[in-house]
Amino acid sequence: MRWIYVQELLDPQDGSAPVPDSGSDAGKTVRDRRFYDERGLERVIFFSDAVFAIAMTLLALEIRLPLLPDTVSNGELLAALGSIWPRYLSYGISFLAIGTSWIAHQRLFRTVCCYDRRLMLLNIVFLMCISFLPFPTSVIGEYGETAVATILYAASMAVASSMSALLWWYVNGQGRLVEQPLPPAEFRRGALQKLWTPAVFLLSIPLALWSPIAAMFSWMLVGARAFWY
Amino acid sequence: MRWIYVQELLDPQDGSAPVPDSGSDAGKTVRDRRFYDERGLERVIFFSDAVFAIAMTLLALEIRLPLLPDTVSNGELLAALGSIWPRYLSYGISFLAIGTSWIAHQRLFRTVCCYDRRLMLLNIVFLMCISFLPFPTSVIGEYGETAVATILYAASMAVASSMSALLWWYVNGQGRLVEQPLPPAEFRRGALQKLWTPAVFLLSIPLALWSPIAAMFSWMLVGARAFWY
Amino acid sequence: MRWIYVQELLDPQDGSAPVPDSGSDAGKTVRDRRFYDERGLERVIFFSDAVFAIAMTLLALEIRLPLLPDTVSNGELLAALGSIWPRYLSYGISFLAIGTSWIAHQRLFRTVCCYDRRLMLLNIVFLMCISFLPFPTSVIGEYGETAVATILYAASMAVASSMSALLWWYVNGQGRLVEQPLPPAEFRRGALQKLWTPAVFLLSIPLALWSPIAAMFSWMLVGARAFWY
Amino acid sequence: MRWIYVQELLDPQDGSAPVPDSGSDAGKTVRDRRFYDERGLERVIFFSDAVFAIAMTLLALEIRLPLLPDTVSNGELLAALGSIWPRYLSYGISFLAIGTSWIAHQRLFRTVCCYDRRLMLLNIVFLMCISFLPFPTSVIGEYGETAVATILYAASMAVASSMSALLWWYVNGQGRLVEQPLPPAEFRRGALQKLWTPAVFLLSIPLALWSPIAAMFSWMLVGARAFWY
Repeated sequence: MRWIYVQELLDPQDGSAPVPDSGSDAGKTVRDRRFYDERGLERVIFFSDAVFAIAMTLLALEIRLPLLPDTVSNGELLAALGSIWPRYLSYGISFLAIGTSWIAHQRLFRTVCCYDRRLMLLNIVFLMCISFLPFPTSVIGEYGETAVATILYAASMAVASSMSALLWWYVNGQGRLVEQPLPPAEFRRGALQKLWTPAVFLLSIPLALWSPIAAMFSWMLVGARAFWY
Repeated sequence: MRWIYVQELLDPQDGSAPVPDSGSDAGKTVRDRRFYDERGLERVIFFSDAVFAIAMTLLALEIRLPLLPDTVSNGELLAALGSIWPRYLSYGISFLAIGTSWIAHQRLFRTVCCYDRRLMLLNIVFLMCISFLPFPTSVIGEYGETAVATILYAASMAVASSMSALLWWYVNGQGRLVEQPLPPAEFRRGALQKLWTPAVFLLSIPLALWSPIAAMFSWMLVGARAFWY
Repeated sequence: MRWIYVQELLDPQDGSAPVPDSGSDAGKTVRDRRFYDERGLERVIFFSDAVFAIAMTLLALEIRLPLLPDTVSNGELLAALGSIWPRYLSYGISFLAIGTSWIAHQRLFRTVCCYDRRLMLLNIVFLMCISFLPFPTSVIGEYGETAVATILYAASMAVASSMSALLWWYVNGQGRLVEQPLPPAEFRRGALQKLWTPAVFLLSIPLALWSPIAAMFSWMLVGARAFWY
Repeated sequence: MRWIYVQELLDPQDGSAPVPDSGSDAGKTVRDRRFYDERGLERVIFFSDAVFAIAMTLLALEIRLPLLPDTVSNGELLAALGSIWPRYLSYGISFLAIGTSWIAHQRLFRTVCCYDRRLMLLNIVFLMCISFLPFPTSVIGEYGETAVATILYAASMAVASSMSALLWWYVNGQGRLVEQPLPPAEFRRGALQKLWTPAVFLLSIPLALWSPIAAMFSWMLVGARAFWY
């Protein structure tokens, strides 16, 4: 008896037997696996929005002038502004990359009808990857000519987009958290689509060993694809 | 067959034939061009709000004292606080500029009834311009006496306000995403109004070559106009 | 005719004649002075929330260790952590000060039923004051022993809380934007209450000339009052 | 008469006699203790979300490369990236720690039906602790091998999670702000659970005196527990 109590204390929501899904607003008690309350789901969504927005806006903090004398001529300032062009580029690439990732998140959660604890945790791990991205962006903005900086960036993006794919899979697999489960064919197609972005970033890693610039151009094509369609 | 599949994989939402607009809540399937779900639109809006708010608040990070000794007299601290007056000024100007831009965004989305993927992407590119603004603000706060800093600022603001105009045009053109299309006369008038801000900033560029201070004063008049009416 | 057109272009919402208030959901056309749409008002509110939240969280960025060698002993690190105690204090004071200001904002907007352009602009100017506060906080955290730092802080807080009072007055004066106008006695009482905080901060300015520490203690009493009641 | 007026001015919401709880939407007047308006509660919630999101995203700002020469070889950059591994670790730990704290906050407020001024203040003090966490994270990322850094971190987390427990107790105690009061047994169990996290962090403090690494591993187990159940 005592032992069961401690067990429950440690993992109060565990339950290996499948909980019958009542399908209605049964989210009132703490023990349920799935919650259908609108306000709770909105919090998950708006919290994610805030993390996305902050990560994107913090990218701009990496655009900084090198140290200049207190009074500069027009020519010197212009030269300094020009010398940091890789930072503009990396800002633009990362902003659009996180932005399209946000769009995918928005599209995914449009179909979500309920949530559970695992979704929240997966979402937080995904957001941890997103909010990490300003760091590789800053590295590539400063040392973009090196293969290592390019590979760090590609690897970070590959991990983040894999987490996005995992989130998609968790929500849609077995129609777990959606109102209407996807037909099997669409589910397979969607899964393939979600693997497109990590695949491109993974494939750009060997490319970067040969030419970092070529790898960066391959990412811009991903962005362009997201933009035009 | 295989080829079509890959095509669909690449651009699942393409469709050159015009999709008939059912005008009702048909936003349930992924393939639709326009989405009418309230929650999805709210995300677009609150995400934008967050980016605006962060960009505005980050402006304050640029207000920094120069390096001082560990213990200062009252006079030294007062002198140091006074010496960074251009940073207060640039903070105020940029905060109000982004703030009025936010008001325009708010006013625009008040009329929006639905959204599509292109709106989201245009909005993200617009937010990319907004979130870039702390950088020219910091440059003008440090080197405001140079024409180059002034021109960088004016050009950034011109680009950002042009994007705002483009967003307005995309939403209202052909009554694309609004409940009630504007009458042609009001549409023309609105478009002219939206071009007012980029025009002022563009015109201030040659002015800055002659006198950076004069150019900055011309912007304050834009702000004042937005403020009083 | 042409001239009138330009006039309208410049200030499309001007109208010196009082606009009859229909009192109903007449917020559909752009020309109206007051807007009753729920979503628009929510944006004003959540945008303010975001600015408050960011300004408060950025305060923590000012808590930084002095430059230490790469490997430190426990004693050295403890001494360094202790040496920055004024930064903990200023963080706490400012966080609670902005926090109580947020509570006042929340309480005010609970009664607001509609908004107009002037409210949005007043609100933005108010937020500009709030988002400026991390700067005096950082100054007082570093040079808190000087009268100048203390006065800068008190003056900034006095301006911010005056703006808060102005906002309160604008919303409630003549029952402008509330559902039920306050009775005259409560309006006068509320206005007096709103002037309490700026008054305390203004009065602490001469106190700071005599003793900065005494001035800081007087603020803590304000915070304590807000906390306990 | 005059004195009473001043008293009311100072603490307009004081009232030592218990206010009868009408249980209905009586939140219209300022004097009530509990407010049931949906919008006001949402503000408290979304404001908290924003603070959580910003604190978590700011953690990434602490991941910074050491100062390197302007052009580096691949090997040098790789070595530099490797040398800051404690910063990746502290980022991950803190992100997940604040994230699980957010989940607890979300779960708590799912049951909240109304709010009062004390809840708002407790919530703000709790958020002050959360938004302080990037500082110990940065200290432990730089001086993680010292016991002092580890203890600072553990103490900060213990305080933050105690505040979370206090918030839980305030909401649920005597069924104060929830729709359906918890049965006494569940209340006791929940209180015990809430004390689990501060207890672990407190117990890791003596452990850190013996071995900082062991203490950090004990926290990861807390995180793992939250993750898997």
